[in-house]
Amino acid sequence: MSPLSADPSFKLFALCCAILSILMLMLAGMTAARRSKAKKYLNPEDSKVSFAGATQIEGAEDAATARVQRAHRNLNESLPIFFGLGLVFVLAGASPLGAKICFAGFTAARILHAIAYLNALQPWRTIFYGLGAFALTGMAVMIVVAVA
Amino acid sequence: MSPLSADPSFKLFALCCAILSILMLMLAGMTAARRSKAKKYLNPEDSKVSFAGATQIEGAEDAATARVQRAHRNLNESLPIFFGLGLVFVLAGASPLGAKICFAGFTAARILHAIAYLNALQPWRTIFYGLGAFALTGMAVMIVVAVA
Amino acid sequence: MSPLSADPSFKLFALCCAILSILMLMLAGMTAARRSKAKKYLNPEDSKVSFAGATQIEGAEDAATARVQRAHRNLNESLPIFFGLGLVFVLAGASPLGAKICFAGFTAARILHAIAYLNALQPWRTIFYGLGAFALTGMAVMIVVAVA
Repeated sequence: MSPLSADPSFKLFALCCAILSILMLMLAGMTAARRSKAKKYLNPEDSKVSFAGATQIEGAEDAATARVQRAHRNLNESLPIFFGLGLVFVLAGASPLGAKICFAGFTAARILHAIAYLNALQPWRTIFYGLGAFALTGMAVMIVVAVA
Repeated sequence: MSPLSADPSFKLFALCCAILSILMLMLAGMTAARRSKAKKYLNPEDSKVSFAGATQIEGAEDAATARVQRAHRNLNESLPIFFGLGLVFVLAGASPLGAKICFAGFTAARILHAIAYLNALQPWRTIFYGLGAFALTGMAVMIVVAVA
Repeated sequence: MSPLSADPSFKLFALCCAILSILMLMLAGMTAARRSKAKKYLNPEDSKVSFAGATQIEGAEDAATARVQRAHRNLNESLPIFFGLGLVFVLAGASPLGAKICFAGFTAARILHAIAYLNALQPWRTIFYGLGAFALTGMAVMIVVAVA
């Protein structure tokens, strides 16, 4: 067992990483499922393996599929920052309290953001996006403080 | 030399990271090369530096360019999860056998996925995508087991 | 304080991560601001919370918004590679001089790339993109050398 495994901040970060990765994979799976349901494909070869009567479109996406995809892409623009800053945060030994608030806060905000996006709930989507961005900004600031 | 450098799981992860990063940069380069060949640009300023007779389009993409770009984006949605989970996996000291299978499996699956995407090979593209997602899910589960 | 916090390569990497994360969040914020200014929305629910007279479009994006979004996406395709390779680089204890050149070089190149993209400055955008990709390639090569 590595010494990091005993660090509560690392344990929480590891758990958050696992949860958010599963969320990311679920949104990717939902995009594929919606696209299949809409019987519209971006690649001509896809309609052959799925439905005989599927429409072949290059570059256009069904509206319901596009919504899931935007939720997916939004997470994809946010999650890598969390992975990068989170590990640096833990390895720098920055504030354990800050870790608890930012890691749990970001994870909760992104799960709720995905739910709000898929269900077209405004202003909740923007609020949860803002909370996630706020957690990342806090982590960046605390990292600079920890290594300065 | 850091103690991690002697850990076989870390060495394999480092190698996989290097390979997948080069694959990512290659797909980015191919998108630019195809776009240049198609003489269609998303930015008006690009046609001036490249070809006098290039078509200026804002927001539309050539079909062959769009295919490379989709392969690139697909990797971009998957690779950050591998980077994040992989490092946490190694630092948590999770199963060395699991590391071997998941790290090598994910890397092979994503190289084959890119080849299948660029050559429009179905159902192979979906199979390799599924194997990659399966490796990531396995890593997430093993991380939770390791820190729990 | 963790032993890594005393490593100059780690400190530089941590600082670069914080700066690039803020850049990423700024580009995300600018996309939203431009979209709001153009009064065009991808999601029907967004026009209700913002402007009464906003046009509701699904899937199309205003030209000025699309430019910021392309700059944002370009960084999003590059930053996760830096996060992944950078941490592996530091943890592998690879060349401290290489770390200084690649970490600072990548960070400077990506800030200048964003400025060049937003102001439609060619060939500067391509030059700064190339410098960033060159730094990442150098990091990948030095990682392989360090663990081999």
